[in-house]
Amino acid sequence: MVYFEDIAQDGSWLSQEMFELTAEDIKAFARQWDPFPIHLDEAAAAKTPAGRLSAAGAQLLSIAIRLSHTAPMPKFAVIAAGGWDQVRFHRPGLLGDRLRVRLTLGERRRSSKRPDRGVLGLDVELFNQRGETVVSFINQLVVQARSDGA
Amino acid sequence: MVYFEDIAQDGSWLSQEMFELTAEDIKAFARQWDPFPIHLDEAAAAKTPAGRLSAAGAQLLSIAIRLSHTAPMPKFAVIAAGGWDQVRFHRPGLLGDRLRVRLTLGERRRSSKRPDRGVLGLDVELFNQRGETVVSFINQLVVQARSDGA
Repeated sequence: MVYFEDIAQDGSWLSQEMFELTAEDIKAFARQWDPFPIHLDEAAAAKTPAGRLSAAGAQLLSIAIRLSHTAPMPKFAVIAAGGWDQVRFHRPGLLGDRLRVRLTLGERRRSSKRPDRGVLGLDVELFNQRGETVVSFINQLVVQARSDGA
Repeated sequence: MVYFEDIAQDGSWLSQEMFELTAEDIKAFARQWDPFPIHLDEAAAAKTPAGRLSAAGAQLLSIAIRLSHTAPMPKFAVIAAGGWDQVRFHRPGLLGDRLRVRLTLGERRRSSKRPDRGVLGLDVELFNQRGETVVSFINQLVVQARSDGA
């Protein structure tokens, strides 16, 4: 278990799994959670700039979380979810795309209210088979500290 | 279609539908997208402060999007997704919770690079049957303007 003080200055890990977007997956997710025509209907998708089905934003975020589970990152002593910042949808996740995730250690700060914990910003980047970023966000993890920093 | 200049100063809308978290839903989502024991296993969930299954964060965001589709909001001339900011998980979404969404008009600014569009911050709040906020975030919508503001 890696406590707040022991987190390395730098680090970056790739997901070991890959997720390929199929029409069935895109439609099943959208039908349940985000029923917009561009995710559900080939005819509507054909009129978009990319010309084919694109995944719902919530599905792309779900894929990023799923792939994160397969990244060989050290086990940080995470005690709470501090939220997600700067979620950006850079380009659509399209039918046939093969997606991977890169996790990179980012900013960190000791909690001012609770010196026995700190916040680690983990940069999450979902990218496609051409290496283009599809979605990125900062996952703020609340991590247990070994000491109160005093 | 409501263009950027014509968006009212204030406005707030409730989802007309409600989403009740069942064990089957929580587990099915987590199995596919976020296989952590607290979402999947009653015995692991029993050891958490709430003592019962909680939904994955990505599922709570997906529910917020789904319920947003049922809010009687005017049809803004949205042309792109500007991203989500300040996603916060205030408290768990627990087995048996009945969730609704409130959408509220927030900050807006004309695009500096593209004066024919603006960015509208739509505050999204997912709350439970006791009126407690479960998740909140700002959905930044890129909205077409009628004129270039010149």
